[in-house]
Amino acid sequence: MPVLSHTALSEMMYEMFAKAGAPPDEARIVSDHLIESSLMGHDSHGVWRATGYAKGMQKGVSPASGYEIVKETPATRVIDAKGGLGIVAAYKAMEGAVEKARSRTFGAVGIHRCGHCGRLGAFPMLAAREGMIGLCFLNGGARFTAPFGGTSRRIPPNPLSVAFPRREGEPVMLDVTTSVVAGGKIQVKEARGEKLPEGWMIDAEGKHVDDPARFMKDAAVLPLGGFQFGHKGFGLGLVIEALAGGLTWAGCSSEKPTRGASGFLAMAINIADFIPLSDFEQEIERLVEWVKSSDRLPGVEEILVPGEVEQRAREQRIREGIYVEDRTWNEMVETARELGVEAPKA
Amino acid sequence: MPVLSHTALSEMMYEMFAKAGAPPDEARIVSDHLIESSLMGHDSHGVWRATGYAKGMQKGVSPASGYEIVKETPATRVIDAKGGLGIVAAYKAMEGAVEKARSRTFGAVGIHRCGHCGRLGAFPMLAAREGMIGLCFLNGGARFTAPFGGTSRRIPPNPLSVAFPRREGEPVMLDVTTSVVAGGKIQVKEARGEKLPEGWMIDAEGKHVDDPARFMKDAAVLPLGGFQFGHKGFGLGLVIEALAGGLTWAGCSSEKPTRGASGFLAMAINIADFIPLSDFEQEIERLVEWVKSSDRLPGVEEILVPGEVEQRAREQRIREGIYVEDRTWNEMVETARELGVEAPKA
Repeated sequence: MPVLSHTALSEMMYEMFAKAGAPPDEARIVSDHLIESSLMGHDSHGVWRATGYAKGMQKGVSPASGYEIVKETPATRVIDAKGGLGIVAAYKAMEGAVEKARSRTFGAVGIHRCGHCGRLGAFPMLAAREGMIGLCFLNGGARFTAPFGGTSRRIPPNPLSVAFPRREGEPVMLDVTTSVVAGGKIQVKEARGEKLPEGWMIDAEGKHVDDPARFMKDAAVLPLGGFQFGHKGFGLGLVIEALAGGLTWAGCSSEKPTRGASGFLAMAINIADFIPLSDFEQEIERLVEWVKSSDRLPGVEEILVPGEVEQRAREQRIREGIYVEDRTWNEMVETARELGVEAPKA
Repeated sequence: MPVLSHTALSEMMYEMFAKAGAPPDEARIVSDHLIESSLMGHDSHGVWRATGYAKGMQKGVSPASGYEIVKETPATRVIDAKGGLGIVAAYKAMEGAVEKARSRTFGAVGIHRCGHCGRLGAFPMLAAREGMIGLCFLNGGARFTAPFGGTSRRIPPNPLSVAFPRREGEPVMLDVTTSVVAGGKIQVKEARGEKLPEGWMIDAEGKHVDDPARFMKDAAVLPLGGFQFGHKGFGLGLVIEALAGGLTWAGCSSEKPTRGASGFLAMAINIADFIPLSDFEQEIERLVEWVKSSDRLPGVEEILVPGEVEQRAREQRIREGIYVEDRTWNEMVETARELGVEAPKA
């Protein structure tokens, strides 16, 4: 399996995307996003998507070429991305939210009709690095989650991501679904030929489904909290429908969703309008110290706060390089050659 | 066990609070809050607290008498409630957030040093009835929840409540903790002499604790998601620390929290600045219909959206009256007599 430095991979992707027709800033946003996802251990949102993106760009997919602001106020903006690159649209949405929050305390930018938004945890970090709380909500993707008490596929996993600064080190960064488990985790089980544990997926009678291959067919994933406390995950999932679907014009999940019901909302909150930023960061630092001082379950070496797993993977992969599966690498090299881009030595 | 009409109980409580020294508007807010909680089936936040509130008011506890705005911007306000009535402070905070959101799209009011805020689900409904999304966050109370991977009591159950309007019927209203279970549910088990199920509470070694009496002693409650997915509940709990503790000046959970680390944040989002309200309400209605059309688990008669359980309890109790336990009723009658208030006939 080839191991490559993140800088070489990032440059290769940038060249591919630029040659495939993406404007330079969009090629940079997408290559940065994919390399960061791979560095952070979220390979499902990382380098292996490069070939797909390059081919999409060759067909002219790009939000900058055609997105339209359908509604704007000093604190809000709603964008019709017209099927363009979700990563770029989401990135620009968060940039817009931060800009609005600078003068209005709160800023929110919603998008409808956009492509796959990539790794949701990437975007609120833009706000956290500006001394703000960043929040992102998404109601897109396959509607495979059952309502609490139900067994049918009804809403997407409806993730949210939140990031905020602390005094030391990287911001706290949460990126979770409101379904009990993300679809990617089920697909990894399938790829590895493993069965699913109890409490992940059910059939129409509510019986446990252990075959991950049924994920995209008839089985439904439980809401976070499962059989006993799934009203919490289900309720949070509906809140995200309201924010990411309702406010953005994307529409909410339904039998025939308005405008596809795949919406993204980026929000930023300017901390300094509540409390001096240094006081806030100090409080978060004390909180982190306090939860880390907890006794631990057997086998747990350290209490980690959200985002630390990713940061540690990132440090390791910057040092050691990124492993790319042979198949992904061969596809990338071939696509690069077609585009006239030289592949780095693996 | 006495059964009383909600109107008679509400009037009795109002008179008690007014005679106990609360200003009329505060007496009304608290009596309305307690009666609504009892009507909605949340007895733990209802009428049984009336005597305690009356006695507190006799001692002069009241936010209106002494609260102080420590920071204000067009979209934000931070209040030092100086130990006053949490229900009144939270109510006024949400009113303030709605007012600010009317002109600024978003409004948020934070409180620190306030008493018990009552039933958190009550407040975002004020926003939902004004065509807004209401959100409340609280990091107060006993710090009995373990971090993910940990076994020590570190953060409170950190609840959030959210409400938003739909086209038909009452707003959707979610009111949940980010711990696997609320403390009140454990105390009910104790009162009934029942053992706790697996996955609620653990000891220092991470072993299941089935004795609810250990709740306020040494045992810790797991975060929502439990042993497998508790990073989600824990992460959400930290987000609520940042919002309700960090922004409000209350401070976050720590060994010696700044200003007590019991903060409340009320937030309102004016929907019409994103999309016409009727379009939003229509989307939520379609979403509700869609999730309700799901097949159901054995024994489940209907899929309910957040807030419907409460609405049905409310309709029933308005018709049939509110049951008050003998002990609670006797205490109330005695306190009422001391205050010169006539009790209604049970």
